[in-house]
Amino acid sequence: MEETETGRLGDTIKELLGGGHDERLANVLDEAHPADVSRVIRELPVEDQVRVFRLLSPQNAGAVLSELDDPILRELVGSLDEAEVSRALDRMPSDEVVNVVEELPKEQADGILDLMEEEKAEEVQELLEYREGTAGRLMSPDFVAVPEHASVAQALEHIRKAATGDAAFYVYVVDDHDHLVGFVPLHRLLAADPLTPISALRTQEVESVSVDTDQEEVARLVQRYNLIQVPVVDPNRRLLGTIGVDDVIDVMREEATEDIQRLGGVGGDETVLDQPEAVFKKRLVWRLINLFTAVLAASVIGLFESSIHSLATLAVFMPIVASMGGIATTQTATVVVRGIALGDMTPSVLRRVLWKEIRLGFTTGVANGVVIAAIAYVWKGQVLLALILGLALVFNMLVAAVVGTLIPLALKIFRIDPAIASSVIITTFTDVCGFFSFLGLATLLIRYLL
Amino acid sequence: MEETETGRLGDTIKELLGGGHDERLANVLDEAHPADVSRVIRELPVEDQVRVFRLLSPQNAGAVLSELDDPILRELVGSLDEAEVSRALDRMPSDEVVNVVEELPKEQADGILDLMEEEKAEEVQELLEYREGTAGRLMSPDFVAVPEHASVAQALEHIRKAATGDAAFYVYVVDDHDHLVGFVPLHRLLAADPLTPISALRTQEVESVSVDTDQEEVARLVQRYNLIQVPVVDPNRRLLGTIGVDDVIDVMREEATEDIQRLGGVGGDETVLDQPEAVFKKRLVWRLINLFTAVLAASVIGLFESSIHSLATLAVFMPIVASMGGIATTQTATVVVRGIALGDMTPSVLRRVLWKEIRLGFTTGVANGVVIAAIAYVWKGQVLLALILGLALVFNMLVAAVVGTLIPLALKIFRIDPAIASSVIITTFTDVCGFFSFLGLATLLIRYLL
Repeated sequence: MEETETGRLGDTIKELLGGGHDERLANVLDEAHPADVSRVIRELPVEDQVRVFRLLSPQNAGAVLSELDDPILRELVGSLDEAEVSRALDRMPSDEVVNVVEELPKEQADGILDLMEEEKAEEVQELLEYREGTAGRLMSPDFVAVPEHASVAQALEHIRKAATGDAAFYVYVVDDHDHLVGFVPLHRLLAADPLTPISALRTQEVESVSVDTDQEEVARLVQRYNLIQVPVVDPNRRLLGTIGVDDVIDVMREEATEDIQRLGGVGGDETVLDQPEAVFKKRLVWRLINLFTAVLAASVIGLFESSIHSLATLAVFMPIVASMGGIATTQTATVVVRGIALGDMTPSVLRRVLWKEIRLGFTTGVANGVVIAAIAYVWKGQVLLALILGLALVFNMLVAAVVGTLIPLALKIFRIDPAIASSVIITTFTDVCGFFSFLGLATLLIRYLL
Repeated sequence: MEETETGRLGDTIKELLGGGHDERLANVLDEAHPADVSRVIRELPVEDQVRVFRLLSPQNAGAVLSELDDPILRELVGSLDEAEVSRALDRMPSDEVVNVVEELPKEQADGILDLMEEEKAEEVQELLEYREGTAGRLMSPDFVAVPEHASVAQALEHIRKAATGDAAFYVYVVDDHDHLVGFVPLHRLLAADPLTPISALRTQEVESVSVDTDQEEVARLVQRYNLIQVPVVDPNRRLLGTIGVDDVIDVMREEATEDIQRLGGVGGDETVLDQPEAVFKKRLVWRLINLFTAVLAASVIGLFESSIHSLATLAVFMPIVASMGGIATTQTATVVVRGIALGDMTPSVLRRVLWKEIRLGFTTGVANGVVIAAIAYVWKGQVLLALILGLALVFNMLVAAVVGTLIPLALKIFRIDPAIASSVIITTFTDVCGFFSFLGLATLLIRYLL
């Protein structure tokens, strides 16, 4: 539905740009949601991006920037004056400014921050000190906190003055040393008697994360406990900021994209809209790695060249064994990698998962082995060859079960993203084993095959 | 961090179960978060699941049930009395009851609903009438709505009485015909003068979805516009319910899992913890499909059996061309499938993406072609064979670029999940083209190769 809404907005904007109707375009942009404008901007050539950006109202301009991602963001900001960008960012909450400047080249980011209001710029600088991918980098320093001995009336007064924007759903409660001790959802404040002490309303426990918690961990916490805001504390449990669920959703999308694309042998942050130059290197690296693993598999075939020379039929069937090993490892590794990402694949279930995969490898292997043996027999009329083929296939699917389970887990243990266990790496094992078992068996029994 | 928290809870529970310390176990369970308890339950044998469930307080028991997924949920509920289950569910909001009963066999679900409080059961029945995967099925019928002529004081009174649980962050504003016309975040109500009319505070626009909107669409809306609650309306824009961001996050996770696993040739809802019997059929289906595509590719090789018989070296290199086509299609298709899921891959960018992929196919193809030709030359000392190999590889990577872009898009147009364009289907093209181009060229020039 809103897919077409963005589409319609895009058509209107392109039309008005073409006709040079800048005033009408400014009106259209004023009415549109910044998220939609940013989606349209991504599809425009850079000179039109600049034109559209300059027609935006200052607050919308900042919002549009914070919705854009690298490389579009870099390109657009590079074509604008630093003063324009800083003016737009001055209107934005500091955590959203961080989203923008962290993607820019250092020099440009500094230039823009220098031109911004001092207080905002300092806040941004402080957030930028936290490592990328941690809770600290993700949090907003705006929140409402009241001391535990305050009354409901005092807390309400606090909220009225705070004006933290639309993200204020909870009032956090801190003790005399600023330690986070609980929170109160706004609607409970509303329902309470104004004289009630806040300490009587607050939750007894509060889920929080420390500034250096990994963002994936924050996402898992939000998902597991259905949070809409996560407080961030320092090592002494002093409240430093909060992370809204909207930022967590962005993290979840990024992580899902990363997992999907790494499994497919592509960079985790690649998008369909990237320029070919920008992704050439990463694509090439994986293709070269694949080339070398393919040569490795080919060298196994090379060992059996004389068998193939005497019986060329072997060459016909040999890729089937490898291909079946490939699908089997991919299936197993995919479920295991996703299980790791979802936190389901813990060491305590390893044995159960491995046993399950071995059973699946064996049962589907036998089923497939019988089918392929029958096909081979009908095709070539050789019982022994059909048997060898079926046997090699079962064996290879058992290898696939073990390799597909253990390699992603091993990568996880060595703190390497298990999604890198993409088909490229893992299927090398089944290619090699497949060629070896089939051609090896055939070579041992070649005198009965000719 | 909380990974180990669940782990610790799991160890404690298993220990207390083993020692028969039911009273202490009940205390531990009382202190624990239902989300953590449900994660521990998933790893227990069913008789222990029942024991743990019976030690839970009634409200925790309902929450634990609503956190469980098929097949664990079915198994546990199947081992409990319907009366126990209905008692636990009576304490839950109706949308969470829906989450449970929709996963159960019809008869059992009806039995449980019959035993529940009548009002709650009716609410649940109404929600169950909406199709699975739509906004209606996802929504909660609890929300706070006030007429537009109400004052802030009246709205506040309304909230105090409503007690909709922790999900009340917005007050929705409706006109005299119950049409949704806007909303007011709670903190703005707090900051306003009690006599202000609500119509002066409400937003001018409100993002809403209709009951039959697909849940993926709801997720896209939430992500794009940073919503924490989405109102659901009927065709006349009458407000029927709201969807909280926590439910949307669950949808996003499910959809990401589905995409990842379908790309890997596995069922979208499979988990590492499934029993082998439960997934055997789906795994086997894909493996059989792969078997037939592999036989198809093998039959192409069969056409050239006599060439291979005279020059067995062809069999050594032939899988390299296919394998390189495989990685290239997988890379391209992965980015395109993810682009479709994220809404980036619109028809207006098709030409740009196709052109990018063709350029990448050509450039990486040439780079890889040169490397493999060099390797082949050093290995076998045949210039012409090396050239044929390099050429076939470039050609196959161009095929991969086109196939990897167009097939997922075509599937999308025919309303088939593009993620089904998994390696299994698409790489058949590059396998066939790879074998055909390499062996075909070699056969044409075979007299110069021998």
